[in-house]
Amino acid sequence: MNEDKFFNSLFTRLPALPPEVAIGPGDDCAALAISDRQLLLIAVDQLVGDRHYRLQNTDPDTPFDAGRKLLARNLSDIAAMGGIPRYCLTAVALAPQQDVQWLNQFMDGILALAKQYNMHMIGGDLATAPHDAVASLTILGDVQKQDVISRRGARTNDRILVTGTFGSSLNTGHHLKFTPRCNIGQWLARQHFATAMIDVSDGLLLDLGRVCRASGVSARIAPETVPRRTPGTTEEQALTDGEDYELLFAVSPDIAPLLQAKWPFPGIALTDIGVFTEPNDDLVCTLQGRPVAANGKTGFDHLESRP
Amino acid sequence: MNEDKFFNSLFTRLPALPPEVAIGPGDDCAALAISDRQLLLIAVDQLVGDRHYRLQNTDPDTPFDAGRKLLARNLSDIAAMGGIPRYCLTAVALAPQQDVQWLNQFMDGILALAKQYNMHMIGGDLATAPHDAVASLTILGDVQKQDVISRRGARTNDRILVTGTFGSSLNTGHHLKFTPRCNIGQWLARQHFATAMIDVSDGLLLDLGRVCRASGVSARIAPETVPRRTPGTTEEQALTDGEDYELLFAVSPDIAPLLQAKWPFPGIALTDIGVFTEPNDDLVCTLQGRPVAANGKTGFDHLESRP
Repeated sequence: MNEDKFFNSLFTRLPALPPEVAIGPGDDCAALAISDRQLLLIAVDQLVGDRHYRLQNTDPDTPFDAGRKLLARNLSDIAAMGGIPRYCLTAVALAPQQDVQWLNQFMDGILALAKQYNMHMIGGDLATAPHDAVASLTILGDVQKQDVISRRGARTNDRILVTGTFGSSLNTGHHLKFTPRCNIGQWLARQHFATAMIDVSDGLLLDLGRVCRASGVSARIAPETVPRRTPGTTEEQALTDGEDYELLFAVSPDIAPLLQAKWPFPGIALTDIGVFTEPNDDLVCTLQGRPVAANGKTGFDHLESRP
Repeated sequence: MNEDKFFNSLFTRLPALPPEVAIGPGDDCAALAISDRQLLLIAVDQLVGDRHYRLQNTDPDTPFDAGRKLLARNLSDIAAMGGIPRYCLTAVALAPQQDVQWLNQFMDGILALAKQYNMHMIGGDLATAPHDAVASLTILGDVQKQDVISRRGARTNDRILVTGTFGSSLNTGHHLKFTPRCNIGQWLARQHFATAMIDVSDGLLLDLGRVCRASGVSARIAPETVPRRTPGTTEEQALTDGEDYELLFAVSPDIAPLLQAKWPFPGIALTDIGVFTEPNDDLVCTLQGRPVAANGKTGFDHLESRP
């Protein structure tokens, strides 16, 4: 069992969604039509102590950093839809060793980043857990209906573009300090170039496979073209490490070179790593000599080892 | 430190809310004005294994029951605002011993109750935790702006009415099997009788104190009038156990007897347990001979024992 299969199986058991649900479960955010023109975006993401940050070691993973990361992960989901973040709610289950000072610093990390994005915290819940520190954050944003970018629209021959660099997120601290790509996502939404978009959080290959399945296409990439975060990062790390929080999106082949030539975000690389292909042509790339399929599980999967 | 003080201190650090936030943090739900007439309600609540249900013992606390409880807790928050539940998102951090079968049954418990309320699941997230099972659910609902009931409107001399019975929730299984009071909350919202409302989840005294602080009043109750769930339930248990998920609301003294005479919910008790009083008159009741203040912490507090 893997996480995508679990959710796909779960979603097929759900009753038909009402028409005001413009985008249902299975994308970076769900989207509700709240007026003729506007969508409300909603997503939830979690942060688990000793999974997503080191709980025992307060240096360098401070509670402030952890709180910041929780919101930043959610901002990356809003970015992937082209949305503007507006509100958040935070639920925290405290581990026994966490005191009020820890909690205040954790909340400060959320609030400092929220302020940068002119976001507001509108609710929360507090609980205690027997051993672990688990927090979840629900983010709300909005986007014009005509601008929203889902995972579903990639077409055969569309180019695969990515922002930034990949791999070695944990050992470089990128996973705590990254800047979510909200401004790029919003710009792409307004331009109407991108036919599909996702944020790369579980590994480039895994998240590319999600776009392929949602869009009904396959993909072929040139692994050596994927920008690596450090000189020591291997091709495999760049393709599978995860926690990159970069955007991967599809544009038509005539747009891709123009977009690269006129890319208005200096300092953030834009790289063409490959092409979406006919469905059934499921070869993504070769990795250490092995072909990797578009539905390959290479990346971070929360259910992979469970019966 | 207690939970209410922590959140009050946190909320005072937040920047001023934009006008579209009709009800900000600190009520059962936050409310966003999404049109001239309609509010979107949002709340998040958590369910922790071996806190809110017994994780080790699958009988009688099944994963299905646990999932059902997670949604039911959130439905009770929507009920307390007079709202109609619409959508939910679920984040689950799995403990190592929980397999896919457990997760499916947990989700089935959520989905079965969601179906009863014609609600839809529109998103979620899955993670793993080192030891614990922690789940959170975000609920979305709506209510007409003119109908919404917050914690803030109770006035001196308003009567304090409660639905149902109190105490002994854990040992009777009520905490798993309760029916959230959505239909009563919606009916009260349409009638415009109730000046303030809350769902009693952390203990009657504690939640009454929250209405007092939000409304700027105090309260005096007759503890012997509080309906008890079982013959063996003590006055103190009825007032402080928590997990009752009943509604407590305020109505003017002339309305209270009429409402009791014409109460349209057969089988669900409606009881007048006391009166809201001038601020500073902070005596709620006597409990085992001790006076208990309206701001007393008697009930369930997640931060009480923390430095």
